[in-house]
Amino acid sequence: MALKTGQEYVDSIKALNLKANLMGAQAEGLPDNPLVSPSIRAVGLTFDCAHAEETQELFRVVSPLTGGEVNRFTHLHQSPQDLMNKVIMQRYCGHATGCCFQRCVGMDAANAVYSSTFDCDQAHGTGYHRRFIDYWSFIQDNDLVVDGAMTDPKGDRSKRPSAQADKDVFLRVVDRSPEGIVVRGAKLHQTGMLNSHEIMVMPTMSLKNGEEEFAVCFAVPTNTKGIHYLYGRQTSDTRKLEEIGLDVGNPLFGGQEVMTVFDNVFVPLERVFLDGEVDLAGTLVERFAAYHRQSYGGCKVGVGDLLIGASALIAKMNGVDQASHIKDKLVEMIHLNETLFSCGIACSTLGHPTPAGNYEVDMLLANVCKLNVTRFPYELARLATDIAGGLLGTMPPAQALDDPQTGPYIRKYLAAAQGVEVVDRMKVLRLIENLVAGAGSVAYLIESMHGAGPPQAQRIMIGRQADLEAKMARVRDLLGLTSRV
Amino acid sequence: MALKTGQEYVDSIKALNLKANLMGAQAEGLPDNPLVSPSIRAVGLTFDCAHAEETQELFRVVSPLTGGEVNRFTHLHQSPQDLMNKVIMQRYCGHATGCCFQRCVGMDAANAVYSSTFDCDQAHGTGYHRRFIDYWSFIQDNDLVVDGAMTDPKGDRSKRPSAQADKDVFLRVVDRSPEGIVVRGAKLHQTGMLNSHEIMVMPTMSLKNGEEEFAVCFAVPTNTKGIHYLYGRQTSDTRKLEEIGLDVGNPLFGGQEVMTVFDNVFVPLERVFLDGEVDLAGTLVERFAAYHRQSYGGCKVGVGDLLIGASALIAKMNGVDQASHIKDKLVEMIHLNETLFSCGIACSTLGHPTPAGNYEVDMLLANVCKLNVTRFPYELARLATDIAGGLLGTMPPAQALDDPQTGPYIRKYLAAAQGVEVVDRMKVLRLIENLVAGAGSVAYLIESMHGAGPPQAQRIMIGRQADLEAKMARVRDLLGLTSRV
Amino acid sequence: MALKTGQEYVDSIKALNLKANLMGAQAEGLPDNPLVSPSIRAVGLTFDCAHAEETQELFRVVSPLTGGEVNRFTHLHQSPQDLMNKVIMQRYCGHATGCCFQRCVGMDAANAVYSSTFDCDQAHGTGYHRRFIDYWSFIQDNDLVVDGAMTDPKGDRSKRPSAQADKDVFLRVVDRSPEGIVVRGAKLHQTGMLNSHEIMVMPTMSLKNGEEEFAVCFAVPTNTKGIHYLYGRQTSDTRKLEEIGLDVGNPLFGGQEVMTVFDNVFVPLERVFLDGEVDLAGTLVERFAAYHRQSYGGCKVGVGDLLIGASALIAKMNGVDQASHIKDKLVEMIHLNETLFSCGIACSTLGHPTPAGNYEVDMLLANVCKLNVTRFPYELARLATDIAGGLLGTMPPAQALDDPQTGPYIRKYLAAAQGVEVVDRMKVLRLIENLVAGAGSVAYLIESMHGAGPPQAQRIMIGRQADLEAKMARVRDLLGLTSRV
Amino acid sequence: MALKTGQEYVDSIKALNLKANLMGAQAEGLPDNPLVSPSIRAVGLTFDCAHAEETQELFRVVSPLTGGEVNRFTHLHQSPQDLMNKVIMQRYCGHATGCCFQRCVGMDAANAVYSSTFDCDQAHGTGYHRRFIDYWSFIQDNDLVVDGAMTDPKGDRSKRPSAQADKDVFLRVVDRSPEGIVVRGAKLHQTGMLNSHEIMVMPTMSLKNGEEEFAVCFAVPTNTKGIHYLYGRQTSDTRKLEEIGLDVGNPLFGGQEVMTVFDNVFVPLERVFLDGEVDLAGTLVERFAAYHRQSYGGCKVGVGDLLIGASALIAKMNGVDQASHIKDKLVEMIHLNETLFSCGIACSTLGHPTPAGNYEVDMLLANVCKLNVTRFPYELARLATDIAGGLLGTMPPAQALDDPQTGPYIRKYLAAAQGVEVVDRMKVLRLIENLVAGAGSVAYLIESMHGAGPPQAQRIMIGRQADLEAKMARVRDLLGLTSRV
Repeated sequence: MALKTGQEYVDSIKALNLKANLMGAQAEGLPDNPLVSPSIRAVGLTFDCAHAEETQELFRVVSPLTGGEVNRFTHLHQSPQDLMNKVIMQRYCGHATGCCFQRCVGMDAANAVYSSTFDCDQAHGTGYHRRFIDYWSFIQDNDLVVDGAMTDPKGDRSKRPSAQADKDVFLRVVDRSPEGIVVRGAKLHQTGMLNSHEIMVMPTMSLKNGEEEFAVCFAVPTNTKGIHYLYGRQTSDTRKLEEIGLDVGNPLFGGQEVMTVFDNVFVPLERVFLDGEVDLAGTLVERFAAYHRQSYGGCKVGVGDLLIGASALIAKMNGVDQASHIKDKLVEMIHLNETLFSCGIACSTLGHPTPAGNYEVDMLLANVCKLNVTRFPYELARLATDIAGGLLGTMPPAQALDDPQTGPYIRKYLAAAQGVEVVDRMKVLRLIENLVAGAGSVAYLIESMHGAGPPQAQRIMIGRQADLEAKMARVRDLLGLTSRV
Repeated sequence: MALKTGQEYVDSIKALNLKANLMGAQAEGLPDNPLVSPSIRAVGLTFDCAHAEETQELFRVVSPLTGGEVNRFTHLHQSPQDLMNKVIMQRYCGHATGCCFQRCVGMDAANAVYSSTFDCDQAHGTGYHRRFIDYWSFIQDNDLVVDGAMTDPKGDRSKRPSAQADKDVFLRVVDRSPEGIVVRGAKLHQTGMLNSHEIMVMPTMSLKNGEEEFAVCFAVPTNTKGIHYLYGRQTSDTRKLEEIGLDVGNPLFGGQEVMTVFDNVFVPLERVFLDGEVDLAGTLVERFAAYHRQSYGGCKVGVGDLLIGASALIAKMNGVDQASHIKDKLVEMIHLNETLFSCGIACSTLGHPTPAGNYEVDMLLANVCKLNVTRFPYELARLATDIAGGLLGTMPPAQALDDPQTGPYIRKYLAAAQGVEVVDRMKVLRLIENLVAGAGSVAYLIESMHGAGPPQAQRIMIGRQADLEAKMARVRDLLGLTSRV
Repeated sequence: MALKTGQEYVDSIKALNLKANLMGAQAEGLPDNPLVSPSIRAVGLTFDCAHAEETQELFRVVSPLTGGEVNRFTHLHQSPQDLMNKVIMQRYCGHATGCCFQRCVGMDAANAVYSSTFDCDQAHGTGYHRRFIDYWSFIQDNDLVVDGAMTDPKGDRSKRPSAQADKDVFLRVVDRSPEGIVVRGAKLHQTGMLNSHEIMVMPTMSLKNGEEEFAVCFAVPTNTKGIHYLYGRQTSDTRKLEEIGLDVGNPLFGGQEVMTVFDNVFVPLERVFLDGEVDLAGTLVERFAAYHRQSYGGCKVGVGDLLIGASALIAKMNGVDQASHIKDKLVEMIHLNETLFSCGIACSTLGHPTPAGNYEVDMLLANVCKLNVTRFPYELARLATDIAGGLLGTMPPAQALDDPQTGPYIRKYLAAAQGVEVVDRMKVLRLIENLVAGAGSVAYLIESMHGAGPPQAQRIMIGRQADLEAKMARVRDLLGLTSRV
Repeated sequence: MALKTGQEYVDSIKALNLKANLMGAQAEGLPDNPLVSPSIRAVGLTFDCAHAEETQELFRVVSPLTGGEVNRFTHLHQSPQDLMNKVIMQRYCGHATGCCFQRCVGMDAANAVYSSTFDCDQAHGTGYHRRFIDYWSFIQDNDLVVDGAMTDPKGDRSKRPSAQADKDVFLRVVDRSPEGIVVRGAKLHQTGMLNSHEIMVMPTMSLKNGEEEFAVCFAVPTNTKGIHYLYGRQTSDTRKLEEIGLDVGNPLFGGQEVMTVFDNVFVPLERVFLDGEVDLAGTLVERFAAYHRQSYGGCKVGVGDLLIGASALIAKMNGVDQASHIKDKLVEMIHLNETLFSCGIACSTLGHPTPAGNYEVDMLLANVCKLNVTRFPYELARLATDIAGGLLGTMPPAQALDDPQTGPYIRKYLAAAQGVEVVDRMKVLRLIENLVAGAGSVAYLIESMHGAGPPQAQRIMIGRQADLEAKMARVRDLLGLTSRV
């Protein structure tokens, strides 16, 4: 089947006729809703790029599953070069959209489930891997968007799943039959859920014996009965609803966050990829997390590119681009952004094949990558705020520019360097505001902190992966130590 | 005259009947407008604190000008203890409101104008100081709020005022008569302008011969003919207009930013405190800036207290308050916040009397204080984001909690530690969101960067004030150097 | 009795005829030993400053104990101004010497013991306070140097004192008689011990019931029988022994670290200030630590001044002082250094009287001060290294400058800006090397980390002192929360 | 010719019979001098690794120049994998030696000269490339060590070479004949010079017309007439001369820094690779710098591994390895170290072929790599100092351990966790001291700052390489801007 265009993709999502609670009311026709459309437009770009001349080589790849050409966003990586291309593609999309384009999570989930089902079958004699190959071939053939759903609500974090007052705060199997299973629970922070054709659910953490009911992985269409969507708020989100678009900051693209409730949802057996094998839960979580932590070394770098560009441009517009401290701040922004990119590239190029055959990132460096992502975008945002100036927080609204009395005042007093239209200066300021304190900051800052797990999760993995024993052994050897420690 | 209560203050502002362009339309009745009322409520607290039992000792002080008891926010500081009490009072207000309470700028301007007019009279035989004493006695007697207006639009920053395509981008005297002067221009970033009775205008930077028209300092009532107000936008500002208040984050208080245009405004002579004495412009700017940079060592620390409290509370609510990494992050937040406070205190206690008799902060340490304020709140916000969790960017709106279908899902799945009402958890998350990415972030982050001047302005002052010569001299002496460098 | 001069002080130390193991051999005549003399010279400066015209006002103070004029280094602080003057005096000495001048620890110990003995007498009906007053009056009258000894070796840090394989790793009382007690143990990191007339020993940490033997505080002369001194090594210490002095970096001053062993030392009763009252051990530790953490906001700032001066001077010598990035780095050094000073000042000015009558620093801010000291000197050293250039690590030795063949090459090729003698440039580089990687770095970096306790000790105190409950209470109140957390 | 063993290499250096001014005196027999031997031992390891079973695959590579197997340290990189293997090899050597192993600079110079001579021949019709191929084939065939010499003394940095009072502060051609050229000048910071068979000299910066005399690149044997060596000092260097070796920290390996003077040295034509083509000077500098900045992403990471290992081990020895703050600091050290490694890997894997055929690193990312190296090792050293404890600066010397009186005290009081020999604990502390404040800190800290150019040099390159124009273009496009800026 042919690779979809952006328009074909949007049409296919419209055909699903998804419903969601949007700002407190049940809503349909989501792709046309101005709160939602910027986000679906961002996903659409991942389809159009597979057709545009300058990007199609990067975005298309031949699938070993189907033998056909697929969008790289559905690819199972076959080499370090594939892993690197993934990161480069993500940086491209981030730069182009200035937001989260939402399609990575399914790609990352698929690569993790592919190798984990293989390992599960090896360990337990199950048949999940074949099932998953069939399922994913269907995804590739139809060029679908899959949401990867991991984060359980978790209730009281000091308690295990079974010890919760309401066990449903961890999604779990509540019934089963020869045809399939019934699940109940919720997944939080589902970026792009309503722009997806399918949901793939994974456990949220390592599990142990006695916690079998929570060890479940499966996929269902997004319009499956019993699934309910609560659209999340973002700071400044309602600017998307304003008639005059200037204040929205990013005129085309945006993100989407959804709380997804599974209210006794039936999953047919052929869509179940883990069911009770608790020893694989941690494996699956670690692998998905590692792929997704790698992703941040691409997508957030792209958004960083846009923020750097906007900062450089506003400096020119303000007439300060030749000031040494401004140039120095731009260099610092570039330096931090490229450090993130370096981490994304390094964990890719040092990737290795799994027993299942696809390639996995270097676990240590992928976690290092993400831990830096929990830091540097904040400093980039701080520096952009510094360069942009106080107008970032005090500029009059777009409507005042159209007002016959105040419009001339704005044009007179916000004029800056020669050749700059005041409205252009306002647009650049609003774009920066969007990324450092507006709707875009949800993806650029909050998601950089918590997406693919919070910093402490990366620290734990870094501690585990670093082989401190070997480092201590070299010291013992160099110094000729004999102590028993 | 008696110290006003908060309510008397609000009534007195209503009586001014100010008008402003609000979201593109001319509006009246501002104090009752939900976009504005949180900000006037914050100023009102500075009045009420002069009456509340536990705070009145800190907020009341006897004025040497009038001999009467005045609100400390109108005081001319008479000792290092006065300077310290100012900072402690500001911390209190910041903690109480979680926002900018707007009344500092007039206090800081008054203290700078008081000593600068004295020096000007000494140098030029002018009579500004007496005029200012009369004016400020009137302010104290009537317990008024004065906005201090400094930031000119500046046009092309690479050019001096006279070289601008439109010289009005620096506010200037355009006409004069025996009765007074006429001024034209604009002042940006006027926090709390529409909650003020008076505006005091100062130059925006050091000036030199030939730039006399820009060397002007004066005060007028806010409802003076020819002054126009354009209400600035803040991220998420329209949440203040929503029927259900939860998502606003801070249920009571907020800030206000106004662009203020002077369209040929007449100022009577007795309200003019500088007019053409260019050598005093820099003095005035430096002094005002130093007082205002000190202020940030109080007010932002107070807001930091609230953010730390909210972070500690959400950690308890999430059930993670005993995790060592969470405790460590809270300690780090406290440490950074108290470092800011230390700087606010130190520049106060090392203050010195001016020739005019009031006390001035230590110039070097006040700039050091503010430079830290351009950094640490960003790290506090980052740590708060880390502790709060991803819900900060994905939580459903308040309306969905009231919806009969989705409300129960929210109550079920956002339940956390025992004893926590879901709505309370949402409130705390929305307060944190307000401060790190919402309307409150304008004051806590953007204003921390640019208020009282951007970091580069502080760096220049630090370089000037540090007496590098003395430091080099000690090295030469210790090492017995003879080189001529 | 008159305040000693530096020379009188040195003579009085010589008269003690102390012995120590120096580089592996038992040595006498320490004050004349070139390894030791720089350190005693630094202490001597604290005496001379009480006589020099420009400093005597700061260094002299009237003692409430004796009614006489004493050196401030022996003073019990009577006001916030006293606490501030202490910090200002320390900054002066640090700038003058570029090293640790060693006399603070006794001053800090005395102030802690003074108030703790008072509290102990109140709680337990003991008579320690009177004893201590007598003792300290003797110190003041004779203008003596007292070393404060706190750090026990601690053995296996995961075990309490009584659980150690050898309990002596915590200094303890091993015998007692009506005349006094016998103690055994060791104190590590005794800066300036061999330049002191007296040692005052304190417990190393909070203690509990059953650990009475370790709860001991006393003072003895340094030449008491049974005390053994092991002189510690510093990086590059033997440069002090070289004939040509240039490479030593600091030509006059230096530090001293001593491991002190108490091998069954008898202490007469009148010199015992705590003996078994375990509840006071923690109090004493916390108070001493707080005073000493305040000290670092003075002394290290002074050393920082010297490093900044040297960095500014080498920049001039290299001809790069007008480069914007160099100026920016110097501003950053000043900024960080003054932030430390602000913390030292703030914890002083917010000090409070103890029940005993002397003044105690603000506990929270003193710990904040020291925690910053564990960070900023490292960044100052890094920036100084950046400014100084690679010669810092590669410059030929002083002897090569005197060599007839290589001397001319050095003079030819290390010539820099006009007017700079090559030997002067080398001296400045060696001073910087001394502070960032040489003997001076022990005081400026390692001691900044561990002196008065390592960073984790400060973090624990900050967590305890910050009143998180009050911060959370304000959030609950502002948001109207009803949850029971 | 066969790949040399370490011993064969040492013998071959001995055969050169190099002389140097060592601590002020002319010395011979350098490889056996205890000041020098640790450094030659480190170079020797690069030879032995080509023979050891577990490393030979990494260290051996087939040369396209000679067709034979060569040590990778003499290789001209033929692929991104080669560039990566270089970094991995460097990390290995850094971990093994804990110091600078000195052989990278020649490898980096060769790769830069190889492609620059090719470009020069293309542009100017010169024949340098063939000459260089012949020269380098000789190096590979004989498995030689080549020092790359770049850093001129530079005199007054505010002046161009020709404007210096003494032009020789930039190495230059002072005479020429049909047989060759005569050069005069000096090169500073020549790490490992006296362990090298050959010196390859390059210009120190970009040059322009009129500066032809400074645009010179050539190679000569290290024992060439007219070359003089002044051995540089390192902090604590004389500990290498002490009889008891414990205090030296690193018992086997160390660095070496040499100031090298060219006093009218004759260079035969076939060894001249650039002579007056000023346009190539900058190219050569940039390329060499980029390769060498990449190198730091390997070697310093290896030293970091050793420091992390030592920190982890001393934590165990102190009995604090289970403390959460210690574990957290170790994770932070690993994180920073692996971030450096990621940058080293990324600039390698994104390398590209030059017109000459060898591979060049990504210029932007190589500079990003090095800029991080000017920061993170300092934080690693700070954290190691924190973990190690105050003994780092106060521990008695090794000789005191052997002293019959003090030895038992040390064994008694420095005992820590069970199973730890006191001497082992001392060894680990001395190793850490060596790296953070001793001789090893010259390579780990000072060289990390200035080696391959100081941070400002990297910032300039980052600013140039970042393509800000493309970033601004995307903003213009996304926002539909029409302004002419």
